[in-house]
Amino acid sequence: MRTEKTLETPSGPYHHGNLRLALVEQGLVLLESSPQGEFSLRELARQVGVSANAAYRHFANKEALLVALAAEGFRRLQAAQVQAAMTVASLKEGFRQAGRAYVRFAQDNPALFRLMFGGLLSNHPSEELSQAAHAAFGTLQTSVAQLLGLDEADHRVTVSAMSAWSVVHGLSHLVLDGQLEHHGHQADALIDEVLARFESV
Amino acid sequence: MRTEKTLETPSGPYHHGNLRLALVEQGLVLLESSPQGEFSLRELARQVGVSANAAYRHFANKEALLVALAAEGFRRLQAAQVQAAMTVASLKEGFRQAGRAYVRFAQDNPALFRLMFGGLLSNHPSEELSQAAHAAFGTLQTSVAQLLGLDEADHRVTVSAMSAWSVVHGLSHLVLDGQLEHHGHQADALIDEVLARFESV
Repeated sequence: MRTEKTLETPSGPYHHGNLRLALVEQGLVLLESSPQGEFSLRELARQVGVSANAAYRHFANKEALLVALAAEGFRRLQAAQVQAAMTVASLKEGFRQAGRAYVRFAQDNPALFRLMFGGLLSNHPSEELSQAAHAAFGTLQTSVAQLLGLDEADHRVTVSAMSAWSVVHGLSHLVLDGQLEHHGHQADALIDEVLARFESV
Repeated sequence: MRTEKTLETPSGPYHHGNLRLALVEQGLVLLESSPQGEFSLRELARQVGVSANAAYRHFANKEALLVALAAEGFRRLQAAQVQAAMTVASLKEGFRQAGRAYVRFAQDNPALFRLMFGGLLSNHPSEELSQAAHAAFGTLQTSVAQLLGLDEADHRVTVSAMSAWSVVHGLSHLVLDGQLEHHGHQADALIDEVLARFESV
């Protein structure tokens, strides 16, 4: 996490890698705060305190930035799940906690979540994004294999992993769309109850 | 379903209800065929063969039309599921078929599916839309109650229904986003396998 101080130093020199990180970090903030994601690379550069040209050296256009934001999203989602799973002793409970972390990630980062799953993977092939998405899915696949005591390559692991992913993914979308509240449910309580059943992958 | 013939009669008189139906029917076609849903009420009126004013008598603006399209989407989704469930004898198999019909609906009507679950329910309260969404969820609740042999009002029915909905909803989104293919899976085969497990609500 970058500090406020760094972002508040408009004239400060950024090393190449640092500026990219700063643009991604502030890009994530802009994404969540602008309705329909309407912001420009120029605006982002201004907020980070560099020239538009400096920003363009890292991202050829806004699409390229969005792809980088989505990739960072997959890395953070994966990290949040791994961290949540580590807080408990049993594999089963860890799996449930990871599922809860998935839904919480969607709740906390709705615009980023929609971006990550909004067709970028198919429409804008990128090595970075593809790797980040694969790594996130790989973590799930590994957990399911451990839970079931099967080899990761076993087809049953794939089907179980996809089922588990579908549950948390569907739940996340329904929560973001306000469907749970619409049907008169207390979202948080119901999320926990659905996930309690979800241990039995 | 309206026939081609009716839509090809630009000068033909529409009764009040008929025109609304014709606008919704052709609106659904326009929605799926225009990228990002970029079409106007004026364009729709032209395609149906009436003046823009005639269309505005039914829909004050495009938002109102989109709400009507989403409501029609929920009615069709519900009908597709009921019909699929009726094709088989056992409750369990019927439930699985209804789940398959849900995912197929998303595959066949991606833009409509995204519209139905794109925040309209929260952002544009409408009696028609709310009723259609409730009715669709009600069908699911009823099936789950029958399957479990419990009263519809039983909380376990709600949790099971929400779990089942999450699976098919998540799977639908993952399919639309191309995530299954991205992770090297044959989408249709995997959908069937996930749904085969999903009988055990």
